[in-house]
Amino acid sequence: MLKATVHVTLKPGVLDPQGKAVQHSLAALGFGGVEQVRQGKYIEVDLAETDRERAHATLDAMCRQLLANTVIENYAIDIAAADIAE
Amino acid sequence: MLKATVHVTLKPGVLDPQGKAVQHSLAALGFGGVEQVRQGKYIEVDLAETDRERAHATLDAMCRQLLANTVIENYAIDIAAADIAE
Repeated sequence: MLKATVHVTLKPGVLDPQGKAVQHSLAALGFGGVEQVRQGKYIEVDLAETDRERAHATLDAMCRQLLANTVIENYAIDIAAADIAE
Repeated sequence: MLKATVHVTLKPGVLDPQGKAVQHSLAALGFGGVEQVRQGKYIEVDLAETDRERAHATLDAMCRQLLANTVIENYAIDIAAADIAE
């Protein structure tokens, strides 16, 4: 089994109303000096696959087809260094 | 300025309907062998602060008060290694 993580973030320049809302809430709570907040998604995927290259290709396809909207979002795939035997 | 990232994830054992929905959608798209999907949040925070220790304490308070629901979620704070001069 391979454990992978995917970060999906808005591309630079794309408005992030959710991040802005968090920033304003932080200000309302008294946290000053917050210059920017951007919110993205963090997805952990456990794959029944042992080949890292194949896993990466599969995850890339998952991102393009479902996990990310590539028009406005970037994604980054990380596969944990070692196979985890369970 | 310091750039920090916060990962907010559901604690182990807490049901993740959003992750399950993604898992089922992946299966429907033909991606087999997906054993588990857990979805969390990824938040980038730019702070007008240069002291890493103070920044960490501030971010910890932000997580406890707003960013994470500590009853069901864990959070992890990372502060980028170098100050970014802009």
